[in-house]
Amino acid sequence: LEKERGQVNFNVEELTNIYDGGAEETKLRRKVADVIQNDPEVRCKDIGMMTREERYIDGVRRCVYLYKVLLPREGWTPVSKEVKDYFKYRNIGKERSFGVHAGVFIPCLLSFGSDEQIAKWLPLAMQFQIIGTYAQTEMGHGTFLRGLQTTATYDKKNKEFVINCPEISAMKWWPGDLGKSANHALLMAQLVIDGKKYGMHPFMVQIRDLTTHMPLPGITVGDIGNKVGFETTDNGFLHLNQVRIPRENLLCKNAEVKPNGTYLTKASDKMVYGSMVRLRAIILESEAVSALGKACTIAVRYSLVRCQGELEPGKPEVSVMEYMTQQKKLLPYVAMTYVTHFACLKLSNQYNAFTREMDNNDISGLPELHALSAGMKAVVSEQCSDGIEILRKSCGGHGYSNASGIPIIWSSAVACCTYEGENTVMLLQCARYLVKCINQVQTTRMVGSVAYLNNMTQSTCHVDSVSGFKQLDVLVACFQYRAREVLKTAALKLSHLTKHGMASYNAWNQSSVELVNVVKAHITQFIVTTFASGITELECTKPVKNVLQQLCALYALSCINASTGDFLKVGYLSPRQCDLAHEAELELLSCIRPNAVGLVDAFDFSDDLLQSCLGAYDGNVYERLFAWAKKSPLNKTEVTEYLHAGRDILEGRKSKL
Amino acid sequence: LEKERGQVNFNVEELTNIYDGGAEETKLRRKVADVIQNDPEVRCKDIGMMTREERYIDGVRRCVYLYKVLLPREGWTPVSKEVKDYFKYRNIGKERSFGVHAGVFIPCLLSFGSDEQIAKWLPLAMQFQIIGTYAQTEMGHGTFLRGLQTTATYDKKNKEFVINCPEISAMKWWPGDLGKSANHALLMAQLVIDGKKYGMHPFMVQIRDLTTHMPLPGITVGDIGNKVGFETTDNGFLHLNQVRIPRENLLCKNAEVKPNGTYLTKASDKMVYGSMVRLRAIILESEAVSALGKACTIAVRYSLVRCQGELEPGKPEVSVMEYMTQQKKLLPYVAMTYVTHFACLKLSNQYNAFTREMDNNDISGLPELHALSAGMKAVVSEQCSDGIEILRKSCGGHGYSNASGIPIIWSSAVACCTYEGENTVMLLQCARYLVKCINQVQTTRMVGSVAYLNNMTQSTCHVDSVSGFKQLDVLVACFQYRAREVLKTAALKLSHLTKHGMASYNAWNQSSVELVNVVKAHITQFIVTTFASGITELECTKPVKNVLQQLCALYALSCINASTGDFLKVGYLSPRQCDLAHEAELELLSCIRPNAVGLVDAFDFSDDLLQSCLGAYDGNVYERLFAWAKKSPLNKTEVTEYLHAGRDILEGRKSKL
Ligand SMILES: Cc1cc2nc3c(=O)[nH]c(=O)nc-3n(C[C@H](O)[C@H](O)[C@H](O)COP(=O)(O)OP(=O)(O)OC[C@H]3O[C@@H](n4cnc5c(N)ncnc54)[C@H](O)[C@@H]3O)c2cc1C
Ligand SMILES: Cc1cc2nc3c(=O)[nH]c(=O)nc-3n(C[C@H](O)[C@H](O)[C@H](O)COP(=O)(O)OP(=O)(O)OC[C@H]3O[C@@H](n4cnc5c(N)ncnc54)[C@H](O)[C@@H]3O)c2cc1C
Repeated sequence: LEKERGQVNFNVEELTNIYDGGAEETKLRRKVADVIQNDPEVRCKDIGMMTREERYIDGVRRCVYLYKVLLPREGWTPVSKEVKDYFKYRNIGKERSFGVHAGVFIPCLLSFGSDEQIAKWLPLAMQFQIIGTYAQTEMGHGTFLRGLQTTATYDKKNKEFVINCPEISAMKWWPGDLGKSANHALLMAQLVIDGKKYGMHPFMVQIRDLTTHMPLPGITVGDIGNKVGFETTDNGFLHLNQVRIPRENLLCKNAEVKPNGTYLTKASDKMVYGSMVRLRAIILESEAVSALGKACTIAVRYSLVRCQGELEPGKPEVSVMEYMTQQKKLLPYVAMTYVTHFACLKLSNQYNAFTREMDNNDISGLPELHALSAGMKAVVSEQCSDGIEILRKSCGGHGYSNASGIPIIWSSAVACCTYEGENTVMLLQCARYLVKCINQVQTTRMVGSVAYLNNMTQSTCHVDSVSGFKQLDVLVACFQYRAREVLKTAALKLSHLTKHGMASYNAWNQSSVELVNVVKAHITQFIVTTFASGITELECTKPVKNVLQQLCALYALSCINASTGDFLKVGYLSPRQCDLAHEAELELLSCIRPNAVGLVDAFDFSDDLLQSCLGAYDGNVYERLFAWAKKSPLNKTEVTEYLHAGRDILEGRKSKL
Repeated sequence: LEKERGQVNFNVEELTNIYDGGAEETKLRRKVADVIQNDPEVRCKDIGMMTREERYIDGVRRCVYLYKVLLPREGWTPVSKEVKDYFKYRNIGKERSFGVHAGVFIPCLLSFGSDEQIAKWLPLAMQFQIIGTYAQTEMGHGTFLRGLQTTATYDKKNKEFVINCPEISAMKWWPGDLGKSANHALLMAQLVIDGKKYGMHPFMVQIRDLTTHMPLPGITVGDIGNKVGFETTDNGFLHLNQVRIPRENLLCKNAEVKPNGTYLTKASDKMVYGSMVRLRAIILESEAVSALGKACTIAVRYSLVRCQGELEPGKPEVSVMEYMTQQKKLLPYVAMTYVTHFACLKLSNQYNAFTREMDNNDISGLPELHALSAGMKAVVSEQCSDGIEILRKSCGGHGYSNASGIPIIWSSAVACCTYEGENTVMLLQCARYLVKCINQVQTTRMVGSVAYLNNMTQSTCHVDSVSGFKQLDVLVACFQYRAREVLKTAALKLSHLTKHGMASYNAWNQSSVELVNVVKAHITQFIVTTFASGITELECTKPVKNVLQQLCALYALSCINASTGDFLKVGYLSPRQCDLAHEAELELLSCIRPNAVGLVDAFDFSDDLLQSCLGAYDGNVYERLFAWAKKSPLNKTEVTEYLHAGRDILEGRKSKL
């Protein structure tokens, strides 16, 4: 890798600073990372060999240590910048329990609680004296919130709510930190007063005793079992059988029930939607994009170290990176990491701008923001998790071992396609907004992420050279044209079907396969456009700007080449132009390849974060693999116990099988 | 599900018989399955909750019991049809160790050993008195066999081979059953006589003591650690430090070393290539296609049971199967299972025909057979593993739980993309053959799977209706035309580059991204053509024929619609025709949907094989989920031990953290 690093033609540290958002940010991040890595109690250790139980227990231990020992020692608090950065993509990662407590329970308390309620529970939560979960999903319902079955019936006489799960499928199911850790739940239930239903409301419910940690009466709670990943989290089930809580435990920023049973709505819950956008941007960055960046780092470094096969017959073996098919597997995902990272940043910034507008009582930007975040959530989480799996396979046999680190990275990134809004459902939400836009574009001027729809002129691409297809303005135009045209086509089909008498819900369903594709086109357009215009504004050295331009073009071209059908069908590109775009992508791969190691080094993931024998900074793959393997649980004894018994049977001796 | 089953419009049992290859086969398979399922010792139990160690130990236990207790009891032998069927896709599956011993070590002994050697080791192996691994891959080399570093140096004086791993990366790494189980290795090493290298040869090496099971002197052996799946298998490492074995342990069907060090080649090793084809067909069917079938069964049944959301506002909730996006996720994979199942069968049959020709000393069919099997291996394993993951996600949150069964199914199916020839490498092998064919087609008549290349006329598709795109002959023509044209284009680029002075190895590399695509086009063409012509010949009732035709068309259309770019670029389809093909796919989804449950029931996977709370035959999803969750390792105690300690810190009490 040393030799590879020698040929990188840009300043890696400069790019790291840009990625971090400034040199100061890099400095602070490294300071935090160093503290973590130098503390043996909190540094990761061989998670790839642990059982589910060990992972959970270790996660609890690490988290408690972090908050109760390390923070005070360093003079940090849960809200100081150093700590908020932990929760971001660049640091200690997910090998820690209580993620829902810190990342969902507390923020929701702040969103739903009255000032009084916040004053009562927040300090306890911050000190981990209460540990909370966010319990919304039930066994039978996740996506369709109105279908949730748990009820909170107001008992006027006792001034209490009675929380009840009427059947097995009404049990809360999946909430993180619920199974074994939490003693409180911020629980969503159907409010019922005098037999009348008022919809879903948030309640604070204590579920375990604060001293013995035993479940309270009427409560059945436990872990839901092993799963693809997230071993440190005890996603749980919770059954409530006529459990009584005080009236004051309805979190009442938005709605309140008076002692006499009168129901009062207060603020609108639009705010809540706004904060969901923020959560989404953070989750995307920390769970999906950074996971992709880690997988890229591992696969690129390993591909440079791994020598296998002769390229030129009779010559020495080459690193597998020399194969074009390998470059095609890796480099577009390096590019994707960069472009989606900045697209997520843009989403966060858009949210911040929105909160400023909201202070002036202007919430007109919400629908667009909401649609954009839903679409981004689905497209980015899918692109990233698919990419991680391709990167894993690109490591050949060793990619299949936990030693590579990628299986664990993938297993939590892929969950992001499902939680916080199932991806297809998110795509269709975004689609609804886009269809509305395209139907209004003749009369209303579109702004923000849909502004490109204003330009409705028909045209075709005029580029006729390979180099032309590396121009960012050309690529942006391709994506905008294509996104607009597939949207127009889908909207046309919809209105055609309804005009011919189909009910609109049915027409929607009949068009939903196309609509999913529309949103993918819209979002890749957003990602490419955002990055391209970001580069223009960026102040940096020429070599760094160059490499960022190449990355943007590579991402765009790899998207075009993966769906040439769309571009041909809308008549924007000709078959010959598609060939040029393909050649442009191949040329870019060769251009970027010498910088590959620099591009992943610039992400600056420490070895501690990567947890990979294949992807460590020094490229010392084989020694690490051997050292790691020796720690396999099966190697605890030279002869596994069962094998003796097995051999007894094999040899016909008696055994108690 | 009862109601769903009522509306299936074909005879499910008839389809099962066709899938099995006849009613007799179905009967026998069920008999075997019943024996297994009714024996509590060998039936699967909650593998989703087990640790790696438990899975391995349970796998050894089950396997030993199977061979030593169950087989004799039933009067079966390892070679009786009942038992050979175990190893096939429909039965006990992989929850059993010693897969490499039975599936690779023994067949390789038969391929490489002389009659004497077979007589010596085969009976011991069949009785599990020796347990063998196939040790080829090293830490540093898998794909590139000539790069393997382990040497077997002949010592004339002692008439022995000295086996040695010169460095850490020369250690054997990955062989199944090696780490803890095996006491013998069929080991590939570089033969060296008098300082001269003779290439890779197979040796029989004892690695552990037959009584104590301790490693023999000079041998370091162990498990390589946790991995994505295959928990029951102890893939291992093996380091040999100057280990001596008798001269007679070179397996000498193909080559022999005389006592004085003379090297003699005997038979050609073409035979070995032939048997690799057979192994590939079996692996594809049992590891990839049947895994896809299981995932389809689970996802289809669950989607019918899962009610979520209103389709028509205000009406009762519907099963998620009613959403077109859901049908699009599921039904093309049901179709894929059927068509690839029969394509694998065709590959097996082609192998059988080849062995008959080989008996007449005709091995001319080998290159085609080899290329076809390499291409099939790569394309089918990728399609299936990608499909399984889409099916898993289609189950929403519960798909992420091991309770769904799909994570474990995926984790072993996806390995198939890597072992037995890494997929990209396989694709490029197939591509080499195809390029040779297209360059000779003007002078030589092509036969077998490449016969379609003989027709080189330019044309376009003339269909102009949705129903036209459901015609199998139309679809076959699309695939053949496209496959041929993309091949021609790639071959043209290759010859263009070499004509302009590029070295041929370099031109190959520069074209490899296209060549990968060429092989995918060729193989989907093969799959569609095989199934379409199979249906024509099939004798069955009209409804079954109907449904098979629909499945074939659905698979074909979903492939076309996923790569319209190709079809447009070669000029065979127009944009309008692509739209028609898209509508045809949507219509087929609606057509097939009422039969969905029948189509997966026809695979006839028992609940025991599926190991899924979501996919059991009775559709009793929620009770099963709850019963399963209670068995989580974290639920062994109500309050997890660590939490007490954690709470001590939380509450500021002393603790020894
Ligand atoms: C790792 C993990 C952590 C989680 N943590 C929490 C937590 O802390 N708290 C909590 O409350 N929940 C949590 N959940 C639950 C999660 O939010 C839900 O699983 C998720 O919202 C998906 O809902 P579902 O399971 O009901 O999927 P379903 O909606 O049942 O999805 C099944 C299929 O139906 C399709 N479908 C459903 N509705 C429609 C529609 N209208 N149109 C088209 N297709 C549709 C989907 O696309 C999907 O293919 C977690 C889940 C996971 C996997
Ligand atoms: C579950 C499992 C079980 C296994 N069981 C056994 C066993 O029983 N016995 C045994 O001996 N081995 C076994 N193996 C090893 C397996 O056969 C190898 O891992 C496999 O052949 C891939 O080789 P590799 O690891 O060297 O990959 P590599 O070749 O290092 O692949 C890395 C990357 O380089 C690329 N690449 C390599 N060469 C080329 C080329 N010429 N052109 C283009 N790209 C190239 C690949 O496409 C890939 O993207 C097992 C592996 C697994 C995962």
